[in-house]
Amino acid sequence: MNNPQLNKNGELHHLLTTEGLPAPIIRHILDRAAIFVNSAEGNEIRKVPLLQGKSVFNIFFESSTRTRTTFEIAAKRLSADVVNLSIGSSSTSKGETLLDTVGNLCAMHADMFVVRHAQSGAAHFIAKYVAPEIHVINAGDGRHAHPTQALLDMFTIRHYKKEFHNLRVAIVGDILHSRVARSQIHALTTLGVPEVRVIAPKTLLPTMVEKLGVQVYHDMRQGLRDVDVVMMLRLQNERMTGALLPSAQEYFKYYGLTQKKLALAKGDAIVMHPGPMNRGVEIDSSVADGANSVILPQVTFGIAVRMAVMSMLAGAK
Amino acid sequence: MNNPQLNKNGELHHLLTTEGLPAPIIRHILDRAAIFVNSAEGNEIRKVPLLQGKSVFNIFFESSTRTRTTFEIAAKRLSADVVNLSIGSSSTSKGETLLDTVGNLCAMHADMFVVRHAQSGAAHFIAKYVAPEIHVINAGDGRHAHPTQALLDMFTIRHYKKEFHNLRVAIVGDILHSRVARSQIHALTTLGVPEVRVIAPKTLLPTMVEKLGVQVYHDMRQGLRDVDVVMMLRLQNERMTGALLPSAQEYFKYYGLTQKKLALAKGDAIVMHPGPMNRGVEIDSSVADGANSVILPQVTFGIAVRMAVMSMLAGAK
Amino acid sequence: MNNPQLNKNGELHHLLTTEGLPAPIIRHILDRAAIFVNSAEGNEIRKVPLLQGKSVFNIFFESSTRTRTTFEIAAKRLSADVVNLSIGSSSTSKGETLLDTVGNLCAMHADMFVVRHAQSGAAHFIAKYVAPEIHVINAGDGRHAHPTQALLDMFTIRHYKKEFHNLRVAIVGDILHSRVARSQIHALTTLGVPEVRVIAPKTLLPTMVEKLGVQVYHDMRQGLRDVDVVMMLRLQNERMTGALLPSAQEYFKYYGLTQKKLALAKGDAIVMHPGPMNRGVEIDSSVADGANSVILPQVTFGIAVRMAVMSMLAGAK
Repeated sequence: MNNPQLNKNGELHHLLTTEGLPAPIIRHILDRAAIFVNSAEGNEIRKVPLLQGKSVFNIFFESSTRTRTTFEIAAKRLSADVVNLSIGSSSTSKGETLLDTVGNLCAMHADMFVVRHAQSGAAHFIAKYVAPEIHVINAGDGRHAHPTQALLDMFTIRHYKKEFHNLRVAIVGDILHSRVARSQIHALTTLGVPEVRVIAPKTLLPTMVEKLGVQVYHDMRQGLRDVDVVMMLRLQNERMTGALLPSAQEYFKYYGLTQKKLALAKGDAIVMHPGPMNRGVEIDSSVADGANSVILPQVTFGIAVRMAVMSMLAGAK
Repeated sequence: MNNPQLNKNGELHHLLTTEGLPAPIIRHILDRAAIFVNSAEGNEIRKVPLLQGKSVFNIFFESSTRTRTTFEIAAKRLSADVVNLSIGSSSTSKGETLLDTVGNLCAMHADMFVVRHAQSGAAHFIAKYVAPEIHVINAGDGRHAHPTQALLDMFTIRHYKKEFHNLRVAIVGDILHSRVARSQIHALTTLGVPEVRVIAPKTLLPTMVEKLGVQVYHDMRQGLRDVDVVMMLRLQNERMTGALLPSAQEYFKYYGLTQKKLALAKGDAIVMHPGPMNRGVEIDSSVADGANSVILPQVTFGIAVRMAVMSMLAGAK
Repeated sequence: MNNPQLNKNGELHHLLTTEGLPAPIIRHILDRAAIFVNSAEGNEIRKVPLLQGKSVFNIFFESSTRTRTTFEIAAKRLSADVVNLSIGSSSTSKGETLLDTVGNLCAMHADMFVVRHAQSGAAHFIAKYVAPEIHVINAGDGRHAHPTQALLDMFTIRHYKKEFHNLRVAIVGDILHSRVARSQIHALTTLGVPEVRVIAPKTLLPTMVEKLGVQVYHDMRQGLRDVDVVMMLRLQNERMTGALLPSAQEYFKYYGLTQKKLALAKGDAIVMHPGPMNRGVEIDSSVADGANSVILPQVTFGIAVRMAVMSMLAGAK
């Protein structure tokens, strides 16, 4: 099978999705990220010259200050030059095709494109048409994939739980619209997690989600029982009213993570969230700030994981 | 008293306000800034490696291209990596709390946060919750404080007048709404200026402003008599119409700085303005561009003062 | 005659327009740009330290992500520090005059201003008032000039055609509103191109365009006959409806470049476009992506030409 993410030597050439990403490559990324997290200095991440003289373009067709910032910091800590492009307000609004925009950016000779786009498949499409020496990192495309988020989640799980083969992991919330959930599920199953649960109301689950190798729970109390890891999802504001959900209050009652519900998980279970959090909607403040929460370490590890991916891509050339 | 700006050795850890900032620290900042202003080369400020490998986040909850630019330039001249974040349009609009935003940015391991926020007290609040190794610089919070502006004003005064103990200084304009005026008054009195005057209509003065150690004038002709320094304030557009002021023309007639009114000050008085100027509203063009104006040197000195503050914070760790 | 672009030694001090720019200086820019385009490495452009320690301000009063990006990349490949300023939403909206904005930016001691402005003449105006050590590059002012675009076009022509003295060049489209066309015409005539044609409907031609030394064609089939170079112009969306043009479809029929019309030019004619393209309006996709198209190389050469201009300005100090 032809994997569009790997070059002919089987090395990582683009990072587009965790689906089909071989386990050894995921482990390699996590190992490399660990080098950048110097726990001796309080997890401080220092500047290294690995991408000196290289150019990274942050191409955001959909705006996201936070995600753009994490990639910008990662690239600068690798000593790359970073150019931020908000394309929403730019050429595409002038009627230019996506392919022409990509062609133009390639002609400027970047080394790496970090791409965020509202349409599923955009990163794959771009990767297909870029010049062969350019590497594409998917920073989120529609409902499809957000691989660096999933990889930093895997890093976080390994950091606290050491192994994957003995874990019970629950993903809670709006699975249907979540590129994060999709990428997490593929990464968890690839790394050999034996039991991945998804917990959500029927209206927020994709049809035939079981095919992804997960167990489905509609009752959060049942779903959280004895899990090692709770991965909460952000509830998009636009879902809180309207047909899919009765109200934010109702949602919190059934699917919000409280101390009481968390008590059903293992005592040393870790609680994760990709941010930004809706406190009081999908997660109670006492849990978000509680002893089991590893939400802020996720952010720190996210910089390290993005540095790892970028430096691997640059070296694989 | 516990000063939130100083560490336990009494060194500058955050710069939040000039209120309560000890005179020796202010003098230290001005002395250090003087090193960056090489008057032999026409006040040119060259790049130095003092913040090499450090990250400065410009976190602007309220947009200000000019202020952001001065901090960005100062940080880049110190060889820091700079990341600009406009938060107005970002996570806070997604319902995230300020504390979560700050927690996330801390987890990305910046060395310094430059913060502009529309609410008074925001910088203090953020400084209270950041990780201990992160330094916060207040780039303006509501009507409260704008300490780097006041410090560059002090630098400018010392540059032209050498001493503070023998000066008569007038601050003219909308004292009520001005964070600049508040920070100037605290800095001037701390540095021992014996006579600080505020000149404004009653509607644009805070109640009990005398408690700050200033003399109040409503008549500009009386207030300017024999002063060494005239510090003009910007009249915000939104004050020009409405209840507080009859009209911009009326304002100019009574409180606009003209050559004729300036003639009442000392012959070598300097005229300052924090910018951007409303020519013909608070200041006449002939004064803004006249021999007594030091408005553009203020901008140059502002870069040097911001470099001084940043390098002191980085060293004080 | 006093040329505002040259210093008293006849060296390039600002780049404002190709009008009156001496041929030896244009050739010098093209020669220098050729150094940055290393065709041995697939036209890759590597980072050089020529502007180490210098600051380049991209001052965009009119937004243009693409043009800003090309200058940002060029400056960063020269190792300069780059500060991006979108002034549209900033001080000018606060009532500050352009001259005060410029004065303030000068006082921050940049080495170079890259200026884009909606008003014709803005770059000349700014160049007149900047401090003598600051260099101004016009990145497009109203309908007036876009000299770096024209210079990269000249680089492209020379790259493919070697000489200028034996060429027949056609510029096709909305000459009237195009700063690109104006700058191209001046550059082509200065470099000795014996025959420059403009092809456009009467409504999209300036009055007395012949005075610029060009031949006017209203019929594209006649105008393209035996030309060596076809330079297409972008049709601004706002022209496509309204008084000047019947419709985009009509325009394409008469002035869109198709394979059939291109067949009238020389067999080895090159097709150029400044981007972003309106496929199916001014150019057919088969031509844009065809064997004669050099549209993407133009973009690459554009980085090199901007590096050449910036490094010449920095050295000419």
